[in-house]
Amino acid sequence: MPLLRSWVESANAPDTDFPLNNLPYGVFSTPDLDGRRMGVAIGDHILDLFALSETGVLRLTEDGPDPFREDSWNAFMALGPETWADLRAMLTEALSEDAPDRAQSALRPALVPGWSVDLHMPFRVSEYTDFYSGRHHAENVGRIFRPDGDPLSANWLSMPIGYNGRASSVVVSGTPVRRPLGQLPTRELPVFGASKRFDFELEFGAIVGQPSDGMISLKRAGEMIFGYVLLNDWSARDIQRWEAQPLGPFQAKATATTISPWIVTAAALAPFRCPPPERSRDLLPYLDAKGDSAYDIDLSVTLAPDGADETVICRSNTKYLYYNSAQQLTHHTTSGCPMRVGDLLGSGTISGPEKHQRAALLELSWGGKEPIPLDTGDTRAFLEDGDTVTLRGAARGDGYRIGFGDCAGQVLPAPDV
Amino acid sequence: MPLLRSWVESANAPDTDFPLNNLPYGVFSTPDLDGRRMGVAIGDHILDLFALSETGVLRLTEDGPDPFREDSWNAFMALGPETWADLRAMLTEALSEDAPDRAQSALRPALVPGWSVDLHMPFRVSEYTDFYSGRHHAENVGRIFRPDGDPLSANWLSMPIGYNGRASSVVVSGTPVRRPLGQLPTRELPVFGASKRFDFELEFGAIVGQPSDGMISLKRAGEMIFGYVLLNDWSARDIQRWEAQPLGPFQAKATATTISPWIVTAAALAPFRCPPPERSRDLLPYLDAKGDSAYDIDLSVTLAPDGADETVICRSNTKYLYYNSAQQLTHHTTSGCPMRVGDLLGSGTISGPEKHQRAALLELSWGGKEPIPLDTGDTRAFLEDGDTVTLRGAARGDGYRIGFGDCAGQVLPAPDV
Repeated sequence: MPLLRSWVESANAPDTDFPLNNLPYGVFSTPDLDGRRMGVAIGDHILDLFALSETGVLRLTEDGPDPFREDSWNAFMALGPETWADLRAMLTEALSEDAPDRAQSALRPALVPGWSVDLHMPFRVSEYTDFYSGRHHAENVGRIFRPDGDPLSANWLSMPIGYNGRASSVVVSGTPVRRPLGQLPTRELPVFGASKRFDFELEFGAIVGQPSDGMISLKRAGEMIFGYVLLNDWSARDIQRWEAQPLGPFQAKATATTISPWIVTAAALAPFRCPPPERSRDLLPYLDAKGDSAYDIDLSVTLAPDGADETVICRSNTKYLYYNSAQQLTHHTTSGCPMRVGDLLGSGTISGPEKHQRAALLELSWGGKEPIPLDTGDTRAFLEDGDTVTLRGAARGDGYRIGFGDCAGQVLPAPDV
Repeated sequence: MPLLRSWVESANAPDTDFPLNNLPYGVFSTPDLDGRRMGVAIGDHILDLFALSETGVLRLTEDGPDPFREDSWNAFMALGPETWADLRAMLTEALSEDAPDRAQSALRPALVPGWSVDLHMPFRVSEYTDFYSGRHHAENVGRIFRPDGDPLSANWLSMPIGYNGRASSVVVSGTPVRRPLGQLPTRELPVFGASKRFDFELEFGAIVGQPSDGMISLKRAGEMIFGYVLLNDWSARDIQRWEAQPLGPFQAKATATTISPWIVTAAALAPFRCPPPERSRDLLPYLDAKGDSAYDIDLSVTLAPDGADETVICRSNTKYLYYNSAQQLTHHTTSGCPMRVGDLLGSGTISGPEKHQRAALLELSWGGKEPIPLDTGDTRAFLEDGDTVTLRGAARGDGYRIGFGDCAGQVLPAPDV
């Protein structure tokens, strides 16, 4: 699909994350406007949907409460895929360079400059599930922690392994992250203190926009996914190592999970489907996705010491995920588990096959044994206080990109014990 | 503490779960009243707090929205421990046999016969965490699954091991539970089908009534716990066995978790504190609870085949829990994990040291190898379709009991594959 040109000139620049083809959804505030508002990014501006609703320009439904008077996208998501398509079609038409002057005049007063806003959580996270669907990551972790065993657990090639995370700890990009306290293993008994092996994980997050009751098909699961964010699953490797048997990670993953501020819709990413990795084992029919079930989205991670320039430490791509979000969501419902509007599914860490594609410091420094160099002359085995980690991602079209905005967080020192 | 006598005569019967000393909180509806209402159980009646609020008899706060017009106890919990104490004091006085005639006349129209009501979820579950703090259970499971290893993992005596569960799957007593589908292990590759090893777990659930941000002390954790319920953590052992490495249980525990309908307050249970089990290892200072940190509450489990009488298959007691809810809650916040009003903490399965105190079929039938006899002449290794499992519990005072009401669920056949 070619670039769709907009009368918002900055949306036509080849390096913007937000061309007319994207139209991602967020929540913003400014010092001048009341409260938090739902908005759509277009070039270097944000379209204020509350303002459009106030003036009657935007009206999706004849009856029912107005979904654009909320401070999250949950109520809108609950309206379902037809309404999702309606809003996208309406915005695409009204922001197109072919839109009549009347449409441009109606929308122009609701365009807020992007530099003037604060961005907030775009949706209320109902529950958060984190999967483990990056094969190279799972294999690297297996090799680091169980050098003599099979790098993958026996079940890995048969199902998307996942665990429930903590929704209350999900924060939006820009929120500082305090290094956690916890029980740290020693050769003898554990000690209590600040994690010494605090890490990031580069992930892709899917947002469930419709509820379910009972097991659903892959097709239905695909229809239920509203959109995607980048996701940093901050992880304390020392806490994790000591606590995780036999019931899995708990406090090691509960400090924070940072997401990018814009929900990039499934519709915007549809042109960027690609084949999934080759299957090493046939999938059971309920998980057997046909065709181009993966996405081709370039990803990167940078690390910047406090007050210093950032170094790119990882370049990867969502195409390395062995299971996609629809497979994860279908598997999530096999037990009858009800899913809800606002559920967030983390993909698992997306490492590629090459060294520079490793998507966590645990892998990059091989368990801390091989610290990596930064452009500043520093090295890193794990994160230090003051470090800022930034995830970026973009699907690449012909002369444009579908971007997510930065997913960034700075590590603050641990609280006093 | 002696029985507090009430002018509601049925509350003075020695076998009621709901004497004046209890005053548990629930949500009910009747065919005659509008919507779901907050209520308090007293003998065989329920006091309708919505009705009392309507008539102006019940007024806790001068300003702010009325918490008794909600269909859950969350808004009331959010008001905090002083308000919790105020309501309890007010109800205790007004329902006492010493209450003036005026108080009795004001309350009497709001008494609804218990037999006429449907009970609903008493609170909205924000997030659900399930711990593993029953030592005898953990040791039995270790012996069944790892006969050659140490029955307890190395970390168990140092911290309350737990994992995040699925809040959307928590249901109130009486809700049928459909046998789950899932991947079942075989000697070769897994097959997809209905769980053949569906089980219950007898647990005690704590409800977090105040939010936190950052790590909290044991003292603060104790103040944040609003009350308790009985909790059945339905578990598919075959699904669990195949999926649980390396990230813990997921779909095996996501079908349903049943709770009893009444929140028995921490205040009502305060007289029933008792010493915790002996410590085999010193706890780190942040977990080191002094004094009578356990509860002495008798528990039982019955199993009734479809249309047949129930058999008591387990008798246990909360005093066997190695870590209490405050220890679990404090540990939950070590990483900085924010806690929210309405979080539910499952205790872990509460088995005692004796055979008849084993609190899951996995243990009772020793991994399915030794089916247990029922009074009906049937035997059970795991649950069969139509079986009803009922948990009951009561703290025993002098001539009265503080009960929870039944926590029951019937197993329905699995959906068609």
